Amino acid sequence: MNENHSDDQIGRARVQDTPALEAYYKELEKLGAGALWTVANDIEPWEPRSSSVPMLWKYDDLRDLVVKSSELVTPEQAGRRVVYLVNDKRKDVSAAVGWLYTGIQVTRPGESTSAHRHKASALRFIMEGEGGYTVVNGNKITFEVNDFVITPNSAWHEHGVDVNGKTCIWQDGLDIPLVNALEANDYAVYDGKQSIDVPVNNSPINYGTAGIIPADKIWDEPFSPLFKFSWSKVYPALIEASKSNEINPVDGVFMHYCNPMTGGHVMQTMGASIQLLPAGFSGKAHKHTGSFVYQCAKGKGYSIINGQRYDWAARDIFCVPSWAWHEHHNASDNEEACLFSFNDLPVMEKLGLYQEKDFVENNGHQEVQ
Amino acid sequence: MNENHSDDQIGRARVQDTPALEAYYKELEKLGAGALWTVANDIEPWEPRSSSVPMLWKYDDLRDLVVKSSELVTPEQAGRRVVYLVNDKRKDVSAAVGWLYTGIQVTRPGESTSAHRHKASALRFIMEGEGGYTVVNGNKITFEVNDFVITPNSAWHEHGVDVNGKTCIWQDGLDIPLVNALEANDYAVYDGKQSIDVPVNNSPINYGTAGIIPADKIWDEPFSPLFKFSWSKVYPALIEASKSNEINPVDGVFMHYCNPMTGGHVMQTMGASIQLLPAGFSGKAHKHTGSFVYQCAKGKGYSIINGQRYDWAARDIFCVPSWAWHEHHNASDNEEACLFSFNDLPVMEKLGLYQEKDFVENNGHQEVQ
Amino acid sequence: MNENHSDDQIGRARVQDTPALEAYYKELEKLGAGALWTVANDIEPWEPRSSSVPMLWKYDDLRDLVVKSSELVTPEQAGRRVVYLVNDKRKDVSAAVGWLYTGIQVTRPGESTSAHRHKASALRFIMEGEGGYTVVNGNKITFEVNDFVITPNSAWHEHGVDVNGKTCIWQDGLDIPLVNALEANDYAVYDGKQSIDVPVNNSPINYGTAGIIPADKIWDEPFSPLFKFSWSKVYPALIEASKSNEINPVDGVFMHYCNPMTGGHVMQTMGASIQLLPAGFSGKAHKHTGSFVYQCAKGKGYSIINGQRYDWAARDIFCVPSWAWHEHHNASDNEEACLFSFNDLPVMEKLGLYQEKDFVENNGHQEVQ
Amino acid sequence: MNENHSDDQIGRARVQDTPALEAYYKELEKLGAGALWTVANDIEPWEPRSSSVPMLWKYDDLRDLVVKSSELVTPEQAGRRVVYLVNDKRKDVSAAVGWLYTGIQVTRPGESTSAHRHKASALRFIMEGEGGYTVVNGNKITFEVNDFVITPNSAWHEHGVDVNGKTCIWQDGLDIPLVNALEANDYAVYDGKQSIDVPVNNSPINYGTAGIIPADKIWDEPFSPLFKFSWSKVYPALIEASKSNEINPVDGVFMHYCNPMTGGHVMQTMGASIQLLPAGFSGKAHKHTGSFVYQCAKGKGYSIINGQRYDWAARDIFCVPSWAWHEHHNASDNEEACLFSFNDLPVMEKLGLYQEKDFVENNGHQEVQ
Repeated sequence: MNENHSDDQIGRARVQDTPALEAYYKELEKLGAGALWTVANDIEPWEPRSSSVPMLWKYDDLRDLVVKSSELVTPEQAGRRVVYLVNDKRKDVSAAVGWLYTGIQVTRPGESTSAHRHKASALRFIMEGEGGYTVVNGNKITFEVNDFVITPNSAWHEHGVDVNGKTCIWQDGLDIPLVNALEANDYAVYDGKQSIDVPVNNSPINYGTAGIIPADKIWDEPFSPLFKFSWSKVYPALIEASKSNEINPVDGVFMHYCNPMTGGHVMQTMGASIQLLPAGFSGKAHKHTGSFVYQCAKGKGYSIINGQRYDWAARDIFCVPSWAWHEHHNASDNEEACLFSFNDLPVMEKLGLYQEKDFVENNGHQEVQ
Repeated sequence: MNENHSDDQIGRARVQDTPALEAYYKELEKLGAGALWTVANDIEPWEPRSSSVPMLWKYDDLRDLVVKSSELVTPEQAGRRVVYLVNDKRKDVSAAVGWLYTGIQVTRPGESTSAHRHKASALRFIMEGEGGYTVVNGNKITFEVNDFVITPNSAWHEHGVDVNGKTCIWQDGLDIPLVNALEANDYAVYDGKQSIDVPVNNSPINYGTAGIIPADKIWDEPFSPLFKFSWSKVYPALIEASKSNEINPVDGVFMHYCNPMTGGHVMQTMGASIQLLPAGFSGKAHKHTGSFVYQCAKGKGYSIINGQRYDWAARDIFCVPSWAWHEHHNASDNEEACLFSFNDLPVMEKLGLYQEKDFVENNGHQEVQ
Repeated sequence: MNENHSDDQIGRARVQDTPALEAYYKELEKLGAGALWTVANDIEPWEPRSSSVPMLWKYDDLRDLVVKSSELVTPEQAGRRVVYLVNDKRKDVSAAVGWLYTGIQVTRPGESTSAHRHKASALRFIMEGEGGYTVVNGNKITFEVNDFVITPNSAWHEHGVDVNGKTCIWQDGLDIPLVNALEANDYAVYDGKQSIDVPVNNSPINYGTAGIIPADKIWDEPFSPLFKFSWSKVYPALIEASKSNEINPVDGVFMHYCNPMTGGHVMQTMGASIQLLPAGFSGKAHKHTGSFVYQCAKGKGYSIINGQRYDWAARDIFCVPSWAWHEHHNASDNEEACLFSFNDLPVMEKLGLYQEKDFVENNGHQEVQ
Repeated sequence: MNENHSDDQIGRARVQDTPALEAYYKELEKLGAGALWTVANDIEPWEPRSSSVPMLWKYDDLRDLVVKSSELVTPEQAGRRVVYLVNDKRKDVSAAVGWLYTGIQVTRPGESTSAHRHKASALRFIMEGEGGYTVVNGNKITFEVNDFVITPNSAWHEHGVDVNGKTCIWQDGLDIPLVNALEANDYAVYDGKQSIDVPVNNSPINYGTAGIIPADKIWDEPFSPLFKFSWSKVYPALIEASKSNEINPVDGVFMHYCNPMTGGHVMQTMGASIQLLPAGFSGKAHKHTGSFVYQCAKGKGYSIINGQRYDWAARDIFCVPSWAWHEHHNASDNEEACLFSFNDLPVMEKLGLYQEKDFVENNGHQEVQ
């Protein structure tokens, strides 16, 4: 393989325009055609190329506006009362990064939405509040801060907060932009609210203990039967692992949320992860295909993304575009930091498009610009 | 489920602009955010929505221009000497339909290209000529008219025509637009030509007989080990099946090219099919997610796509966008017609996005506009 | 299908001996051959046929003898100091039922065995003691009463009890008889003890929390990466499920131990389950292919197996042969009973041999003989 | 690992009998128990151990007796008119080798059997005749000499010969002994003959061309949809491969019959292979777990099995037990020899029990005793 990435070499288009060629191109254009060599170098880049930029959304800036939405519109009017975060370069597709959408939803005690479903998949990471719940295909799931909850594609879902709870704020993650781009999205509204078919939290009761599954239930859906991943179980496991495992120099203690029936991603098109950066951790840089949206679940630190530093603390949200160099640092010397993230890795992996590369210069750390 | 597709109902965004809201939207915008309900109905369509239009490219119109390219540029200058076909609504991404690229490549006797590879997958359907060949990862494969040949993602490949052959013209199909959109494409040039590691056509010799595979070879690639699907075997099988099988009212005799190791699609991101429309066949309409590019391999007929009629004969190329109603008709009462097609069904299926719908009105036939 | 199970019908061998035939049989015999019709009805039974009988081993009877073994032989002499339980009809293959072996192993504080491995798979269910541990492929796993531990096929393993612990007694389950019958068993001794490569209990630390797995470890073994299934997690989950789930009329609350990477059985050839029979539970009878060995982990009750009643309490062991009618009853009206079991279901399922049948007469309960 | 296979070492049972122990053993026996160390070394062999011996059945010896059966009994009386071949050491289970059954069936023109089914799987390799057919789940399949045909487990099947055909003789292969040993066999007779649901040979018409499968049929059975593997296609493919491939020094040109939907074995419990030994081929020895029954389909040669030479010609049948050294030789210097074989490799592979070993001494060739 030739590592020279110049377009002035055999194997790349190197045709000079001539009057004859220009006339030829016009003839082609009339027929809905073109000469490949006029676009080839552009549509066949040497390396993966993202159209997104890294961005950081500080919760301190956003929180008031999020809460204010609950005064301006009702869930009935809004469908869902959400402030969505949009990448400066992806406004045309309402994406936070790549083909991933994210938003912050607020629900007040006693409020609930009607049910709907769509081909896009959805997930939530809980930021604030008490008494929140979601109903997925007739299964009511209650949640608490830092719990991770899924609402898979084409599953009926609705959310609410108990009348005796406290205002709940959570992050939504969806792949609406991807499913729209793939020209496959759809939408349906449920006639009223779903009937609750099984006892509350039946899903985590049956699938929430590692290594046992109900012997007399058949699960044949293409997503995880475990709908809630409780922080009360996940966080102690991270702490335990941070004591037992060798720390990954790039990612610290890095766990994927997984489907207990497959060991694979929780949904067909989006994955999610939780990672712990030990006190003082200074991660090395790498890049990979696939887009990531992060939320700091605990602690504080900063990430260097393509040479720019982004400082984050609990509840801040930031994104890393495909093939962008990135490294994560814990800013504290005595407290661990935890990062939740979601991604489109299932798409990359299933389509054979995943690749990664370590940053080898400078002991693995980028120069900050 | 409520089948009413009006946006004026519970579950859809129905917020009226007010001065307070407009001020609010400006505040959000400054922070890289927005109110979901201002875009929700647009980004959550009721049904799959394609940005492509149906198109037909007549070979009679294009052939001279394709051949002319061989006088205007050399393969060395052009990289590949290809006239590509572009959808009127997808010029920004150089796609023929959806995220699929197609082009017509011409190679003269004695010409050959240098080798390269990319994350996008590629396939060819042979239209004219003699003595053509492709080299895939060191395997030389010769081909003839109506043969179907694959060059999977990240496989080194190069093409040529024997000095004693006749000018070869073939259709290329790639998913360059998709892999670019997914921000995962790459490109590498080989330093010269590949060395030929195994005897010519070793792949079809080993994997080209149904029901036997080499017991002492391990195949662990995510694509078909059978690189060539010979018309000399495929066509008689179609004829036999047309006599033995009940004819599918939508698709006639419809076969997927498949990976003999999995029964699945030949490559990770693109599938291909061959279908025979018996003499006088008048197919019923349906629609589905996933984009298709067709080439007529034999005979003549027409397709009704979203109510427009497109007449095709051998070597004509046309496309059907995602979720477009379409039906195929054989225009002859005594000769069968054969349609080759390629598609992005592997993407739809792996991501859980495939759905289809039959056209039930009017005995399954659209009104032609 | 004809439900008449008489051999006197078309489709069964019904040949009467004649002098000519008897002469013919002798000729065949000389050539290492025979006439199929002389054995067909015998080797093609109408229904699955087991050569085992139901048996119950009372721990009260056995415990003293098990402990006594620790006075009679050392682990060094015995290899492993185990009292094995043998079915009256399977003494030739040392099986407790079908092709499953089980035994009771005793290890005193400070004792440990040398490491070995074999193609047969092994598992343990802990009955008594403190400070016990196993080492599997360099992973040290500590265990407590009612923990379930696996030592998969061809994994190096050794066991011991801390010098400060208490004498440990556990049940071993292996498929030695099966792997011998399949003519595939082997055995190797490790030169001394294994080196401990990772921190104690690293396996349950990494794979013991439902719904998360290490993102940076690759697991490609054909068995569970979770080697210990702790009673301290399993029992509360059973209790929770017994409150949330509809109780299965045959099996109560019935959970399979599973591989968290697949949702399937923990090892390639043996599965294991834990079930809770609620207070007063009176299970209905069914039968299925596959052999089961049970140990009562908690409470007391009885099982009716092929019409015979077997009363069991904590630590008693009993077996149910393939295709034997069986039903389980909790003998207490206010305490739940728990049954651990292991089985050869992976074999039945992978080979397409599993089938089951409910006992429909008499409201699902057998007559006790 | 310690390669010393003596039982006089740590890790093996080395207990000397004493009066106290003998008394102890008697106490255990009364309780249905025993001391593991009294049987451990026997039930845990160092290497796989087969209870079968190699055997060769010469067709010249058997053919007359096979034909004679058609004079002695009718298909109606016999169920199936078959001479079965039985291993000298496996008479108790009617097996030819290991857990595999084989027999030679004869059917005269105009004869046909009634339909039945069983949990055991079955296959046929055609030896002589014209006009033979089988009906599998309503699919009528005609066959010719050297065709390979499957009748998967639990599929209804029946056989016959057209009234205008010639007496057909074929080899049956079944895993009746295995399924009996696994206590899972069953049997049912069909009430009369099956109705033929689809045109003759519809299965090979749809699935018999490599690389294409019907796009509009769903196949969800755990066995191959291709029921017949025609010699007219297989043999030319073997010849082509023998010219293109490097010849395997152990197996010559070695192909597995496979399920075109999976690339795996044709049925759940039995596999089959066809191999070509080029003229003058002198194969090297190896051994592996899994039992094989061979039939010479063409040519002549000999095999050395565990140091004994067995000479075979077309239609002769021989067996190789699990873990027996074996090597195959073509006795002709100008004609290829072809060996059909069937085996229990699916069982070995699915249960993780397959292993193999090359014979490295003496340039890979055994000394003949």
